[in-house]
Amino acid sequence: MKTLKVIKIGGNIIDNDAALHQFLEDFSKIETPKILVHGGGKLATQLAEKMGVPVKMIDGRRITDQQTLDIITMVYAGKINKNIVAKLQVSQCNSIGFSGADGNTIVSEKRPVKDVDYGFVGDVLKVNTETLELLLNNNVTPVFCAITRDENGQLLNTNADTVASELAIGFASKYKTELYYCFEKNGVLQDVNNNDSVIENINTKTYQNLINEGVIADGMLPKLNNCFHAIQHNVAKVCIGKPDMLFNVSTKFTTIQK
Amino acid sequence: MKTLKVIKIGGNIIDNDAALHQFLEDFSKIETPKILVHGGGKLATQLAEKMGVPVKMIDGRRITDQQTLDIITMVYAGKINKNIVAKLQVSQCNSIGFSGADGNTIVSEKRPVKDVDYGFVGDVLKVNTETLELLLNNNVTPVFCAITRDENGQLLNTNADTVASELAIGFASKYKTELYYCFEKNGVLQDVNNNDSVIENINTKTYQNLINEGVIADGMLPKLNNCFHAIQHNVAKVCIGKPDMLFNVSTKFTTIQK
Repeated sequence: MKTLKVIKIGGNIIDNDAALHQFLEDFSKIETPKILVHGGGKLATQLAEKMGVPVKMIDGRRITDQQTLDIITMVYAGKINKNIVAKLQVSQCNSIGFSGADGNTIVSEKRPVKDVDYGFVGDVLKVNTETLELLLNNNVTPVFCAITRDENGQLLNTNADTVASELAIGFASKYKTELYYCFEKNGVLQDVNNNDSVIENINTKTYQNLINEGVIADGMLPKLNNCFHAIQHNVAKVCIGKPDMLFNVSTKFTTIQK
Repeated sequence: MKTLKVIKIGGNIIDNDAALHQFLEDFSKIETPKILVHGGGKLATQLAEKMGVPVKMIDGRRITDQQTLDIITMVYAGKINKNIVAKLQVSQCNSIGFSGADGNTIVSEKRPVKDVDYGFVGDVLKVNTETLELLLNNNVTPVFCAITRDENGQLLNTNADTVASELAIGFASKYKTELYYCFEKNGVLQDVNNNDSVIENINTKTYQNLINEGVIADGMLPKLNNCFHAIQHNVAKVCIGKPDMLFNVSTKFTTIQK
């Protein structure tokens, strides 16, 4: 079985031109097949401010109304995605930008309203790998933004970590799939203020302990839930850390285990 | 030789939700292989106004500065392109959105500065059909916005009519290629105020007469230059008219001949 790397990058790389440039040069050298998934960073918020569109938050979570969805689609699928693809072409990495709508790759549904209506936010229902496989088998690298569509053709804002984990799971029967979450820290930290305190391995049992101890909390919870969801659905390897973990064997990072 | 239809739609369809919806339903029924190319319509100008970015014009032509390029990339490659792709999926037309950067399909160069610096505007240098052929052969329909990239990865605003003609020319040795320019009129009109005065055939000789008589002028000149460029470079069929020409055999339209 061939190995497929699914690599997700977030705002700390997207928002920094030099970091993004360096990452894309390094990424282009990774052997195919590979898939890149990118988040949105601060650009959408900046554009909303310029357009006078207020950011709506409930309990610290962004509400995606129609105007916000338009902004996110423009920034993520337009500006960020196309600039990444253009840069990868220069580095001889033949890539194609994707949303979940493209190639019918990811079908989602609008998140059901319970206490809060999050607006145009999508929960992933299904990943279709057929068109992507055709490209991967021909050394073309898909670059995903975190927008999907529902069965009525409505675009939906979707968590980028989830897009990455669902893609990795979707390919787990075809490839030995590895999922890498790149972010600003060296991994999951025992002490949030000490970047050297990387917990190198977390499994289902130690995860529960880390939650109980309060070591893992807030934004790390959904990220790690995505990790465990992936490792429990036949993804061969799930790692969290700085992008360095992909290129430098001496870099410490966190590996998730069953 | 199989027939490939390259169909370009402009602002009159893009800017009208009902017209776009109907067109995409009809388009989805056209036999593959096919390529859709779309212009931008008024949305980019509207967004520029909302953001307080002035539209710069010289001699009636828009100048694409960095902010304008960002807006165009967001609107064309983001909002318009992804909504079209999502709607086509619902109509069972498996499509993927493309800029010229995606799949390394179109390489352009920044238009050389003579009297006027048009800014980030691209002239097409080369069309690479390899990745597109892979998709066309598997019934996947590329949907192109009119953005390309140069050899340094700089995105460039590119004329949508030109993107369509260059794609048609690029495929002319692989398919019997047909190029359809859909716009708001029934075709090239003898009398601009009479939509029934369609000139059904124009060839190189009658074209020159129509220019001399002032029948073809202004915005129709670059459009027809694209048509003749295509027909002189082995595109099998070039037509101009309302989208109806694609679906209704009794519709009149203009056909370009050598």
